[in-house]
Amino acid sequence: MSTATGLLSDISGVGADRQRGGYSRHGFDVVELELREWFIAEAGKRGLTVDNDRNGNLWAWWGAPGKDAVITGSHLDSVPGGGAFDGPLGVVSALAAVDVLQARGFQPRRPFAVTVFAEEEGGRFGVPCLGSRLMAGSIDPDAARRLTDLNGITLADAVDAAGFDPARLGPDPEALAGIGCFVELHVEQGKGLVDVDAPVGVASSILAHGRWRFRFTGEGNHAGATLIGDRTDPMLPAAQLVLAARAAARAVDGARATVGKLIPNPGGTNVIASAVDVWLDARAATDEVTRNVVAEITAAARDAAEAEGCEVAVTEESYGDTVIFDPALRDQLAAQLGGVPALPTGAGHDAGILAAKVPTAMLFVRNPTGISHAPAEHAEPADCEAGVTALAHVVEQLTR
Amino acid sequence: MSTATGLLSDISGVGADRQRGGYSRHGFDVVELELREWFIAEAGKRGLTVDNDRNGNLWAWWGAPGKDAVITGSHLDSVPGGGAFDGPLGVVSALAAVDVLQARGFQPRRPFAVTVFAEEEGGRFGVPCLGSRLMAGSIDPDAARRLTDLNGITLADAVDAAGFDPARLGPDPEALAGIGCFVELHVEQGKGLVDVDAPVGVASSILAHGRWRFRFTGEGNHAGATLIGDRTDPMLPAAQLVLAARAAARAVDGARATVGKLIPNPGGTNVIASAVDVWLDARAATDEVTRNVVAEITAAARDAAEAEGCEVAVTEESYGDTVIFDPALRDQLAAQLGGVPALPTGAGHDAGILAAKVPTAMLFVRNPTGISHAPAEHAEPADCEAGVTALAHVVEQLTR
Repeated sequence: MSTATGLLSDISGVGADRQRGGYSRHGFDVVELELREWFIAEAGKRGLTVDNDRNGNLWAWWGAPGKDAVITGSHLDSVPGGGAFDGPLGVVSALAAVDVLQARGFQPRRPFAVTVFAEEEGGRFGVPCLGSRLMAGSIDPDAARRLTDLNGITLADAVDAAGFDPARLGPDPEALAGIGCFVELHVEQGKGLVDVDAPVGVASSILAHGRWRFRFTGEGNHAGATLIGDRTDPMLPAAQLVLAARAAARAVDGARATVGKLIPNPGGTNVIASAVDVWLDARAATDEVTRNVVAEITAAARDAAEAEGCEVAVTEESYGDTVIFDPALRDQLAAQLGGVPALPTGAGHDAGILAAKVPTAMLFVRNPTGISHAPAEHAEPADCEAGVTALAHVVEQLTR
Repeated sequence: MSTATGLLSDISGVGADRQRGGYSRHGFDVVELELREWFIAEAGKRGLTVDNDRNGNLWAWWGAPGKDAVITGSHLDSVPGGGAFDGPLGVVSALAAVDVLQARGFQPRRPFAVTVFAEEEGGRFGVPCLGSRLMAGSIDPDAARRLTDLNGITLADAVDAAGFDPARLGPDPEALAGIGCFVELHVEQGKGLVDVDAPVGVASSILAHGRWRFRFTGEGNHAGATLIGDRTDPMLPAAQLVLAARAAARAVDGARATVGKLIPNPGGTNVIASAVDVWLDARAATDEVTRNVVAEITAAARDAAEAEGCEVAVTEESYGDTVIFDPALRDQLAAQLGGVPALPTGAGHDAGILAAKVPTAMLFVRNPTGISHAPAEHAEPADCEAGVTALAHVVEQLTR
């Protein structure tokens, strides 16, 4: 019988990023395809039958697929240089929970599947929860097919190269209609469970959140030969945006605004950039507050661009309103688990996308430092096994 | 008989950068190796004999190598997304000047060679004028061998892969002792010749200049789940550095300070960076002023890092003091060319490195917009041919 930690160990060599540290596993890249193969093999060992849906999401059915199904799972991709737990913990815990139930001779009465969603982090194509968004119809499939990675490869080409049909990407009402409820187990990305001294909890809500891309355009030139007064250097407003994001988020209780990705073009030491792309990640409790924070940052960016004589173009790359997880399912799970705490989170999840369509819940596993999206992300083996026990219990209760 | 523009056209397809625009040709990469092959073939067509020196610089001798040689040339590598002229114009003009002289039946009495210096821009390994620096002994060869590109490949490995012996990299006093004088033709990187309405001029001086790398280290974490108050985000002091560089340079007449390269690690949209590398290019009229500007920027960077709880490490990647080109040679060339103007420049050159060791001069060709290190870099064909005529005349006078 597998443990969550043991299964994570099986894939610990796949997609390790020597430059950044941690893991870089991105939708439909060779590393993620290897993880898919691994998952299909693990599902096969447990007698599960794996389907690929039209959007590159995997469904491993225990028994026959059917209506009113109980679904659990997460994703195998990571942010660039991410941790080992965000995503994979939910997948391996589901496999380990199947082991627990099969060892007991349990047989689900409701249809049941373990899912792996594609490109949850948006680390390659920029849009988070891409697989679940496509399935739920919350992104236009034509726009999705045109998304490009940093090498200029489109999602359509990447999907095609991975052996899927890009023409089939899009809403999947049939798959959605078959879901009775979805439960995603995930490592916590904060210290809420540390604070209340519990290994496992359930999710109450997700902040409103989105991604905006600012492209500042100036005039590329020689860093040594160009007088300061003759410059229109897009790095200046880009830097002002970083500071404005911090100031705007600090001014609103609980808001977050982050620039973690910034690319000057062409990116030479002795070259004044001709353009700089800056990605803003902003989140707050409500849609209104999030929009206000972004508007304030955008105004500051426009002022800074104008002061330098630069142009700025702003694109909303993704957005999701506040998610309140199904209160009945949340309370049912918390009670089944002996009254575990309910926690809000600032992190987006496929569960947040599906929550708009089907009853959805999340289980969190304690993160001793709260660090996530970084190589230091961690969960103790005992807490991971508590997560498996909890998930197995929930699945047993839901499918019996 | 070739023209400079015609020869540039021959290599216009080599190293075009579709993502950034312009050209990306870097020391010892496949593109630069293709340009070397092209140069060797062109030299062969003119009866020149090509030597590789111990540092990967090419020497195409017209007749036998020897002492008190007249040397002209430049480089074929570019900044990332650079223009077609910076570097190659000096090489193709030298080849075209040989054509002019050979068509006249001229035979140099002094030894004469056309050179191509390696990795002048430092676009791959970070240190500008790497080939001439190694030859002149102004960089420690062990330190040079350990330089790495963005893929972690060392200079030693890149040189080895290109078919050279990395163990031989280092000072080349024999080659230096053979140089009677060095003349580098280059596209101007400013509008000095536009202002005085002249197609060609000579160089008077180069600003003191250097490159410094700032590594800010904080704590990588989740962009959505981490409260603003819990962050140590190295993007904040990195942004402050960009602004401090502008402020410090603006306060000193003629000083320049630029951040054109900035890399957050890991570089995910939804990830607080764990580290940010920022490269500062700073230049001013004198060593003292340059050092003061950099000290002011460094102090601001340290303050900003401390305010965010980040660490900062500063490395000087290269430095060159003010260069005053040999006044006698400068005046001699200007007179031979009918009294062309003498101009200072803010751009570094191999000629600036060699000027510390041998009599050195530069010819500049008019740049109508002053733009350089960018795809829009340009020189009119007629001005390029005026440059060839001037270089042929200078070579004829110096070698007769």
